[in-house]
Amino acid sequence: MIRWTNFDALESYKALNALNKVDLVKEMSGENGAKRAAEYSVPMAGGLAFNYAAKAVDADTLKVLAQLADEAQLTEKYAALYNGEMINTGEKRLVLHQLTRGQLGSDVIADGVNKREFYAAQQAKINDFVAKVHSGEIANAAGEKFTTVVQIGIGGSDLGPRAMYLALENWAKNNGCFKMEARFISNVDPDDAAAVLKSIDVAHSLFILVSKSGTTLETLTNESFVKDALANAGLDASKHMVAVTSETSPLAKSSDYLAAFFMDDYIGGRYSSTSAVGGAVLSLAFGSDVFARFLNGAAEEDKLARNTDLLSNPDMLDALIGVYERNFLGYSATAVLPYSQALSRFPAHLQQLDMESNGKSVNRFGEPVDYVTGPVIFGEPGTNGQHSFYQLLHQGTDIIPLQFVGFKNNQAGMDVVIQNSTSQQKLCANVAAQIMAFACGKEDDNRNKYFAGNRPSSIIIGEQLTPEALGALLAHFENKVMFQGFVWNLNSFDQEGVQLGKVLAKRVLAHETTGALKVFSDLLGI
Amino acid sequence: MIRWTNFDALESYKALNALNKVDLVKEMSGENGAKRAAEYSVPMAGGLAFNYAAKAVDADTLKVLAQLADEAQLTEKYAALYNGEMINTGEKRLVLHQLTRGQLGSDVIADGVNKREFYAAQQAKINDFVAKVHSGEIANAAGEKFTTVVQIGIGGSDLGPRAMYLALENWAKNNGCFKMEARFISNVDPDDAAAVLKSIDVAHSLFILVSKSGTTLETLTNESFVKDALANAGLDASKHMVAVTSETSPLAKSSDYLAAFFMDDYIGGRYSSTSAVGGAVLSLAFGSDVFARFLNGAAEEDKLARNTDLLSNPDMLDALIGVYERNFLGYSATAVLPYSQALSRFPAHLQQLDMESNGKSVNRFGEPVDYVTGPVIFGEPGTNGQHSFYQLLHQGTDIIPLQFVGFKNNQAGMDVVIQNSTSQQKLCANVAAQIMAFACGKEDDNRNKYFAGNRPSSIIIGEQLTPEALGALLAHFENKVMFQGFVWNLNSFDQEGVQLGKVLAKRVLAHETTGALKVFSDLLGI
Repeated sequence: MIRWTNFDALESYKALNALNKVDLVKEMSGENGAKRAAEYSVPMAGGLAFNYAAKAVDADTLKVLAQLADEAQLTEKYAALYNGEMINTGEKRLVLHQLTRGQLGSDVIADGVNKREFYAAQQAKINDFVAKVHSGEIANAAGEKFTTVVQIGIGGSDLGPRAMYLALENWAKNNGCFKMEARFISNVDPDDAAAVLKSIDVAHSLFILVSKSGTTLETLTNESFVKDALANAGLDASKHMVAVTSETSPLAKSSDYLAAFFMDDYIGGRYSSTSAVGGAVLSLAFGSDVFARFLNGAAEEDKLARNTDLLSNPDMLDALIGVYERNFLGYSATAVLPYSQALSRFPAHLQQLDMESNGKSVNRFGEPVDYVTGPVIFGEPGTNGQHSFYQLLHQGTDIIPLQFVGFKNNQAGMDVVIQNSTSQQKLCANVAAQIMAFACGKEDDNRNKYFAGNRPSSIIIGEQLTPEALGALLAHFENKVMFQGFVWNLNSFDQEGVQLGKVLAKRVLAHETTGALKVFSDLLGI
Repeated sequence: MIRWTNFDALESYKALNALNKVDLVKEMSGENGAKRAAEYSVPMAGGLAFNYAAKAVDADTLKVLAQLADEAQLTEKYAALYNGEMINTGEKRLVLHQLTRGQLGSDVIADGVNKREFYAAQQAKINDFVAKVHSGEIANAAGEKFTTVVQIGIGGSDLGPRAMYLALENWAKNNGCFKMEARFISNVDPDDAAAVLKSIDVAHSLFILVSKSGTTLETLTNESFVKDALANAGLDASKHMVAVTSETSPLAKSSDYLAAFFMDDYIGGRYSSTSAVGGAVLSLAFGSDVFARFLNGAAEEDKLARNTDLLSNPDMLDALIGVYERNFLGYSATAVLPYSQALSRFPAHLQQLDMESNGKSVNRFGEPVDYVTGPVIFGEPGTNGQHSFYQLLHQGTDIIPLQFVGFKNNQAGMDVVIQNSTSQQKLCANVAAQIMAFACGKEDDNRNKYFAGNRPSSIIIGEQLTPEALGALLAHFENKVMFQGFVWNLNSFDQEGVQLGKVLAKRVLAHETTGALKVFSDLLGI
């Protein structure tokens, strides 16, 4: 029997509060530090490992965190979710994104359909379409192959797929499986669509319109932009566009599109990269085989997230350390710092995933909670960030926990030796160095050159950013956010906080405003 | 006589602490809200205005903030800086970035040189070079014009110039002054250089190597990458590269470069967009006239920053409201949210500018301070952010102050009417709506749909993102950060916090490690 209980009503909440703080400077120095670095590591899928040696936890902390996992019934709640219980209570929806990449528990039948089969069938339909596009069986009016795919979508229809595309672009180019360039149009700012349209050859471009409801204003507006551009080029828009939407949306059976691929209400936008939302664009760009490998990586990580032993469950462990930092160490933000240029937009995806899921003040019953919930998430790739905001991370007045990611090998297979090391070695040396600099700091009589240390980080280390590794990485953070939502007793799968702005924007456009809103509308020339 | 005093030693510190908190819901509702929205506005340069109606301040707050400005001698300290006093005491350097775009006070003579004349002469040298490149007088070995310029630099040599380039790219294309595509290589990750090099035609590319010291490891490594690519294409690298560096650097008089343009130690990297660091790449991309207009916008804003009346000094006012929020309202982060796709990387530039300048725990004398300093800065363009992290901004447990930016007109001159409004109107309607949604919130018996409001924001509103507007925007934030540094009694112009990581990374590459650092190095395959 699952109990949905507020975090501060749990016994382990008190136990966590009573813990002695861990001194990272001491823990990470000398032989003890070496032992931690070697032992505080959990295997992940895709050849990755989650290393938490430089987190401010010790055996005592981990013991209480394991009690918390048990008391908060994290494993049971995860099982309830993937077995099809209605976890998104606010919107009365199941939460099934894990089913898009595998079968974890029992069959989930909803709306009279086996949902695993439904998602697999949609991807099979995509694969069939993709094969025809790549072979030229589906081509433009002149019978020429499409060379570019343009995703039109915003939020979850943009950030995740875009981050995944950038993550694999160079890997695909270097491994002979790069099929089509992908571009993305998201913002309602007309300069966004204009810039993308100017940079592509529309006659050889295939557009994917992505909107679950089929009513997202930004996306419909940008569709209209694209249709104008196609018409101006003398092209039939319906031969250049496909839709990714729900079966009940106005886009589902429109003759405006070459094809329609479906997701449903059980896939939240920010969890949709492994559904048709990511499936269409990524399969067109890299081939269906690569997308299947990406799904496999995610599915394997989902399996690890079932482990009941906290210390062999990387997703749950990461989640609970994060909760400890947020609620008991008082840290209000987390920086995501991938030492991989390919992950340049991965932090922007995690920003949505995490902040939209757990940036909430009421529990799943709509009651205000008395503890802090989701942190601010931000980040940029290393080493770039070192030359930017790391100053504050090292010597600022607030402590910001850090999430590093690093790979032994690069993707493009090009490198150069300068001062006796390759660029890849320099990249990896920097992330190793940063972990230790943040943890242990440095004494100096000149306080300007003094580093207090005790700034916690974890690192996910892999061989190379492959499709499997990327899938595992994505699922890791999805599952981390899910577990944190369970602990905080939130509904991590709705987003009521985005509604008010939409309502007021409509009022502005209808000129139905008074007071300050009218003044701001006037100032902005509306 | 200037007194460098800690913030908490000022009388106004106590007065700020004693202020009643302003209720934004009340202040921004009804007629009073309309009055505030109209009146709480300060003109900026470039046709911009800083509107702070939705900040949690009132006449009482503003009065005490004006006392603070006075007591902390902000105007005097700014004058000392631009008149050439040694403000960067840690590194014993003057701080002269404002001189790159105008003469605010008396002549500054340093190292026997009139520094204003020096910076102007460097830009004149750039203009001469640019004219020759654009005319084809300076061309590749085949006598063909260069079409692409690639900036090789990291940190301040990358983030600012890149953000400025993206900000004006579409404006330039739409106004007939787009001259050359620009690209940027920054990360030591070899995949960064590999991807850029694969995407350009090196035979028609001019590379700008940017490093003040001439010793930045990332930049030298990437230079080597580029030289290899040029050599592989059978090209003479020295005919494809220029350097932007200091006169004393090893790059200054090298025959490896077509030309060298100089900055000096008085221009911090994060303040270098208006120096040769931004001047070379932006003048090549858009022409010297456009760059001159950008400098003019910045220079005009610098002049406004001298206003002694706080309410007519947009930079100082923004700074002091930010200090009040940070130190007395307890807000630890600020989100920068430009409703303009062209400003997509402007938040990343501000992240460096702000966090590297004021992310410090010791005052300018190296003594620990007992108050919090620079906040975390993050952000993405709207409306994209609305579909991502705004959930937390509206309903999360922490309050994050917001910095909006909006323009009445777009840049590309393309637009489309959907549901009776243009995309530009939708964009502007959204930002107006967000200000009010954050300030006033919404009552609802369903707590899941309830918005508490009292989430402060300011907005900078302009006609269009022109070169002048961009210059003003850049200088506004540079001056804001400077004034905040003065209040916090920090040295905002050094960055000792980046040194330790560099030292440890060198040790890793030399295999001179023990303990946890050795383990991490091994795990990362070094």
